[in-house]
Amino acid sequence: MSIAEGLASKWISVSEPTPHVLHVELCRKPVNAFSAEFWREYSALFDRITREGRDVRAVVLSSTLPKLFTAGIDMGDLSAVQNPEAPDAARASLSNFHFITEFQSAIGAVERCRFPVIAAIHGTVIGLGLDIVAACDIRYGADNAQFTIKEVDAGLAADIGILGYLPKITGNHSLARELAYTSRIFTAQEALHLGFLSKVVPGGQSEVIKAALDLACVIAQKSPLAVSGTKRIMTHARDHSVQENLEYTALWNSSALQTNASCFSPAPVIILIFPSSKDV
Amino acid sequence: MSIAEGLASKWISVSEPTPHVLHVELCRKPVNAFSAEFWREYSALFDRITREGRDVRAVVLSSTLPKLFTAGIDMGDLSAVQNPEAPDAARASLSNFHFITEFQSAIGAVERCRFPVIAAIHGTVIGLGLDIVAACDIRYGADNAQFTIKEVDAGLAADIGILGYLPKITGNHSLARELAYTSRIFTAQEALHLGFLSKVVPGGQSEVIKAALDLACVIAQKSPLAVSGTKRIMTHARDHSVQENLEYTALWNSSALQTNASCFSPAPVIILIFPSSKDV
Amino acid sequence: MSIAEGLASKWISVSEPTPHVLHVELCRKPVNAFSAEFWREYSALFDRITREGRDVRAVVLSSTLPKLFTAGIDMGDLSAVQNPEAPDAARASLSNFHFITEFQSAIGAVERCRFPVIAAIHGTVIGLGLDIVAACDIRYGADNAQFTIKEVDAGLAADIGILGYLPKITGNHSLARELAYTSRIFTAQEALHLGFLSKVVPGGQSEVIKAALDLACVIAQKSPLAVSGTKRIMTHARDHSVQENLEYTALWNSSALQTNASCFSPAPVIILIFPSSKDV
Amino acid sequence: MSIAEGLASKWISVSEPTPHVLHVELCRKPVNAFSAEFWREYSALFDRITREGRDVRAVVLSSTLPKLFTAGIDMGDLSAVQNPEAPDAARASLSNFHFITEFQSAIGAVERCRFPVIAAIHGTVIGLGLDIVAACDIRYGADNAQFTIKEVDAGLAADIGILGYLPKITGNHSLARELAYTSRIFTAQEALHLGFLSKVVPGGQSEVIKAALDLACVIAQKSPLAVSGTKRIMTHARDHSVQENLEYTALWNSSALQTNASCFSPAPVIILIFPSSKDV
Amino acid sequence: MSIAEGLASKWISVSEPTPHVLHVELCRKPVNAFSAEFWREYSALFDRITREGRDVRAVVLSSTLPKLFTAGIDMGDLSAVQNPEAPDAARASLSNFHFITEFQSAIGAVERCRFPVIAAIHGTVIGLGLDIVAACDIRYGADNAQFTIKEVDAGLAADIGILGYLPKITGNHSLARELAYTSRIFTAQEALHLGFLSKVVPGGQSEVIKAALDLACVIAQKSPLAVSGTKRIMTHARDHSVQENLEYTALWNSSALQTNASCFSPAPVIILIFPSSKDV
Amino acid sequence: MSIAEGLASKWISVSEPTPHVLHVELCRKPVNAFSAEFWREYSALFDRITREGRDVRAVVLSSTLPKLFTAGIDMGDLSAVQNPEAPDAARASLSNFHFITEFQSAIGAVERCRFPVIAAIHGTVIGLGLDIVAACDIRYGADNAQFTIKEVDAGLAADIGILGYLPKITGNHSLARELAYTSRIFTAQEALHLGFLSKVVPGGQSEVIKAALDLACVIAQKSPLAVSGTKRIMTHARDHSVQENLEYTALWNSSALQTNASCFSPAPVIILIFPSSKDV
Repeated sequence: MSIAEGLASKWISVSEPTPHVLHVELCRKPVNAFSAEFWREYSALFDRITREGRDVRAVVLSSTLPKLFTAGIDMGDLSAVQNPEAPDAARASLSNFHFITEFQSAIGAVERCRFPVIAAIHGTVIGLGLDIVAACDIRYGADNAQFTIKEVDAGLAADIGILGYLPKITGNHSLARELAYTSRIFTAQEALHLGFLSKVVPGGQSEVIKAALDLACVIAQKSPLAVSGTKRIMTHARDHSVQENLEYTALWNSSALQTNASCFSPAPVIILIFPSSKDV
Repeated sequence: MSIAEGLASKWISVSEPTPHVLHVELCRKPVNAFSAEFWREYSALFDRITREGRDVRAVVLSSTLPKLFTAGIDMGDLSAVQNPEAPDAARASLSNFHFITEFQSAIGAVERCRFPVIAAIHGTVIGLGLDIVAACDIRYGADNAQFTIKEVDAGLAADIGILGYLPKITGNHSLARELAYTSRIFTAQEALHLGFLSKVVPGGQSEVIKAALDLACVIAQKSPLAVSGTKRIMTHARDHSVQENLEYTALWNSSALQTNASCFSPAPVIILIFPSSKDV
Repeated sequence: MSIAEGLASKWISVSEPTPHVLHVELCRKPVNAFSAEFWREYSALFDRITREGRDVRAVVLSSTLPKLFTAGIDMGDLSAVQNPEAPDAARASLSNFHFITEFQSAIGAVERCRFPVIAAIHGTVIGLGLDIVAACDIRYGADNAQFTIKEVDAGLAADIGILGYLPKITGNHSLARELAYTSRIFTAQEALHLGFLSKVVPGGQSEVIKAALDLACVIAQKSPLAVSGTKRIMTHARDHSVQENLEYTALWNSSALQTNASCFSPAPVIILIFPSSKDV
Repeated sequence: MSIAEGLASKWISVSEPTPHVLHVELCRKPVNAFSAEFWREYSALFDRITREGRDVRAVVLSSTLPKLFTAGIDMGDLSAVQNPEAPDAARASLSNFHFITEFQSAIGAVERCRFPVIAAIHGTVIGLGLDIVAACDIRYGADNAQFTIKEVDAGLAADIGILGYLPKITGNHSLARELAYTSRIFTAQEALHLGFLSKVVPGGQSEVIKAALDLACVIAQKSPLAVSGTKRIMTHARDHSVQENLEYTALWNSSALQTNASCFSPAPVIILIFPSSKDV
Repeated sequence: MSIAEGLASKWISVSEPTPHVLHVELCRKPVNAFSAEFWREYSALFDRITREGRDVRAVVLSSTLPKLFTAGIDMGDLSAVQNPEAPDAARASLSNFHFITEFQSAIGAVERCRFPVIAAIHGTVIGLGLDIVAACDIRYGADNAQFTIKEVDAGLAADIGILGYLPKITGNHSLARELAYTSRIFTAQEALHLGFLSKVVPGGQSEVIKAALDLACVIAQKSPLAVSGTKRIMTHARDHSVQENLEYTALWNSSALQTNASCFSPAPVIILIFPSSKDV
Repeated sequence: MSIAEGLASKWISVSEPTPHVLHVELCRKPVNAFSAEFWREYSALFDRITREGRDVRAVVLSSTLPKLFTAGIDMGDLSAVQNPEAPDAARASLSNFHFITEFQSAIGAVERCRFPVIAAIHGTVIGLGLDIVAACDIRYGADNAQFTIKEVDAGLAADIGILGYLPKITGNHSLARELAYTSRIFTAQEALHLGFLSKVVPGGQSEVIKAALDLACVIAQKSPLAVSGTKRIMTHARDHSVQENLEYTALWNSSALQTNASCFSPAPVIILIFPSSKDV
């Protein structure tokens, strides 16, 4: 049975192009607009994989639409948030608070996974799309990828994570703020310079997906114990001091060292670590 | 009445070149050396704008001097700090501590503002000049901009913020430390590579100011509610974990969602978010 | 007497090519594999310099081997860690925990030093080698430098610090994770783009060492009080908020201001800070 | 329809003795031993109330057993955790880690609720029982209540929260450590001195439940907006600095002030805040 | 000239009963209700003493009213906060946020002082009164002192600090929450048990003021350098880890050790530290 | 061979009154004044036990002097710190900073141990004595124990930890500050109320030592794996949020669960956890 079995839903298709690698595709026409139903599906997918313990070792996330990754939130659906029936502004705020918190948690599902998630991005990414790819481990973009932190044009600060993630995962406050304050479009090349993308792939949708799947394939050949530990430790590092992270790492590895997984790919290790002296 | 009305002081000129955009210019000849009187004026300006609630939506900060932004601290004035009359080294230290803390707080005034501050930099920036521009939201540099963290040459660690800001807003510890340990001059191009500048503008003083004002103009057309929330959330993100920042964002937006500001620039939103299906 | 006097040990040579500058060279043939004895020597060297208060102002760390910096951990030696005699997995973990913690602390010795340590890197750097250079203040690489975070190939998450340091000192999570999950080799140029290196030096071993020694020389001419304060404040900045770092800096400098060291290099300060008005 | 409708499960009975107050009773004979099924039920109950938005304003948690609150974990069931089939100790640890994390999250469900949970304790509380009551907002104990942090007698550190909660919610490290290192029994009076209980009620099971229900009743008459805000802010305070908590509070109340709830109990406010001058 | 000279204002009287000790009395009849004007005066007083560097070594804060300390916020005045003219709930929230933040900062003025502030409490303390005394260093209460965290009765979570301070300065979460959720009155004895008061003084207004002044007198005879350092370090300890606090202390004392203040009270030191051996 | 073998030094006697329990006695006449040589011995003792892996399960720390625990720092020795030969105040401060840091680390040695340390206190404890006992896990005091935070009388803020520890391990800021600002003597009873002591033992030196040894004996019969995990987790809890501590605990126990130590004291567990139903 494929590990993708039964995971697809209305607007998300899931396949297993290579063993232990899932390809998750967003496919809500015309623009992958995210209604509450859509992001609940999205979250449920990733949380379910973790809960069921399927042997997934890497995921590629992309869009089936030819011209864009996602246009962001489905504004029609969002109007439901405005709580016309709340008896006062205080209660409306409380209701909004719980709604936003749930929404953030849904988009953050990929961070909770034990395996890396690689965003393969082509076309335009708007608003919520940036929150979605920012929470992924790695971002590859096609030549034609372009991005806009659109929320200020709607009179709002972006609220599902990009404002926190963007400076934290790129280190560049000056450019991140410029992009967030203006909502101007930035290209794949600028995203590469910024560090938001780790690679720009020549070509479009199919090329970037292929590159991301190749990367996923490499990762899937590593010990999942090693990769999931690495993911967890690096996520922890983002939010803690070096000293705290070192202790966390030591605790994590104190038992992880007791694995047989080192037989996973023994040859290259031996070759690289003990080159014969004449090679050196 | 212009929102710049009455804000100018001895060494700071203030104008409103575009509605809701202030141009703040440092103009103490010959080198914009910062005496205590100067930085108290600087701080008072920004804190006053906030306190009076003037409808400022973006500020461009630059120098009127043809060849440099600022040479840093007025060393003659600083000698007053050395407290010859303090009865012992302990009391001298305590006095220094309160002096430095007040100085830091003055230079940090732009961070407390509700609107973005864009530094438009030309010529040489020395010592304190780096602390000043580092506390700004966005930095643009002219081709001829160059920088030196000069304090080690005075036998001191820089103390008004650059050592903390530089690695935090660029993410690059190796280069930031090299520059801070050696006080070597670095150019606009190197600052761009480092991420300290988000743009290098071909030309000099007038060109970089024009580019910064254009950027300010774009920002001033956004909802000030959205921009000031964005600024606050990104500043918070720098100093907290992703999880803490998400909750902060949710709290902030729980009431910010109850705005009418989305009517601010409705057309582009609708176009970008719901492109007609044939465009996609 | 040279400040290098008596510091060399079995696999580490130490010289003083310029006054107050130490050159520390790793020289365990064939591949600088780190056994426990080796990293204990390494740690003892740096901790001893600090404890004895030798007037060291900068250190260059490099390898004497023609083709590589280090191949990482001596896997034969590591097998001793596996604690076959531990009565159960819990006690084996506890023993591992204390072992890893001691190991981390040894490699972190350079961070505890009061002077900067510059890694001059040529050839291949594998596994533990990345932890070692990441803990240094500044990294220079020769053209032929290349890196691989090798641990996932051994079925493990890297545990001596690179997973925490890499994103923290470069700001780039997407690329750092890609490299850590795949163990793919990355070149000096990519390391420069990432910010892991602050300079790529054309040439090989001797060229990169020369460039690093030149840098060390510049640093050694600054006030050691100023440089060591700068180092400590920037390390603190990495792990604390801007506000906490500002207070730390103010405390540090409240007494550091009471130095005579400003007579250290007075001429350039005066020239740069008070250029004659006609120069400006 | 009662807000308790449909909430009971195999080992948990739920009633609504007073409007908006739930009485949750643990009733697994003979000793309320917690199997995984039991604590999953427990967590599901509290998370469901929150998710469904039932208008619960306070909960009293107690035991139906005459002689004890709970004996803690069902050790028979726990043996399932020992993962005899895990291929190595590393994978067994990873599996344990996810199990413990889920278990902690289940017991922490009461902390996530928007309403206070009051533990009404009689008889003996062993092991996990302390984790359960520590996560509650308020603890009342009958005269005959007694406690033992039993885990060290099983060769383990307690792992579902008591070691973190106990010093944090009482402030007393010396006594908390003495109790945790020795597993000695401590009485209701000692728990009161320690601050673990806020009241010792003369009598037994029925008396302590009555006192807790009376307290719940008082709370249920307050504005639920005010009480849930208070809970959230106090939980935040436990884990953040005063300064961070003040900003959190200001954000929370910036919209909460826009409530009509002040008409909730207007009379006492006016009387207390503006006593006629002759009364004062 | 008395150090109290010119410090009094409309509703605050200030005297210097003993050298270097200020007695600050709240005297707004009938109930010391705090309008915005009142708390701005309060804040201005403490910030001015610090700014002017008056040689104040301890302050006692009390009320001149016979029956109460303060009834809290002047609700009539607060209605101004409700921003009827704000164009929408989002802007009303933003305005509230800035108002609350300013209010918190005003009440926190005593924490920023370099000298201890002792609250001498008699009669009833309501609402804001708890925020005010919680920010003080030390609290003494008369027999008749009683307290109520009144805000839930107004449909609000308390917002000027008590919810954060109360558990942090007493360590007792169970009782602190009970008091905050119910607004029930608690007595001086209960406050002593809780740790909110450090002494209950038999008698009323004059007795508690006398006891507090006696304590202030003892403090005023110590080196102000020592006391202000102690205050700052203990405030820092509340909000940081032990390790961070130790480093902060070491930095603080590295220069404080270079004082002549040890001649301040030399005799008792020598006597206590080197008792003659026959005394021991 | 006794585990105490060879551990005694000039002013510290070490015995093993019960298997796995060490009794460490301070015995420098006439007043246990701590010179640098003394506290280096003290630190070396505890660090050596840990490094050598001796099977110590609990330590009792006391004084052999009839009338006091310790009078604190040896002031004659401290004068060496004043660095008369430092060329300026800045360098004197740096030297002091490193001295204080080393001193703090020495006194903190007991916190780094894997076993609990119980302070058995009789007579007077002055200055440094409070730092020493505060770093212990548990404090028992004889009736005649009395304490004074003496440093303000020497014109200094206490600098080896008590100002941080005292509020953190008791939760009571009002009383802790009163004691630190005034240096007034407080008795064993007041220390018990404060939570600084967990027990006051009727009698004097021999009675409190006996009570502490009895406690140590109980602890020594538990699994050392369980006790040392408990210690580490509780120390971590003091300095981190509940959520961080829970994850730390889960990591710690994920491998600790794989122990055979549960056979350590099986009988009482079974009896307490599964009482026969008729007993309940």
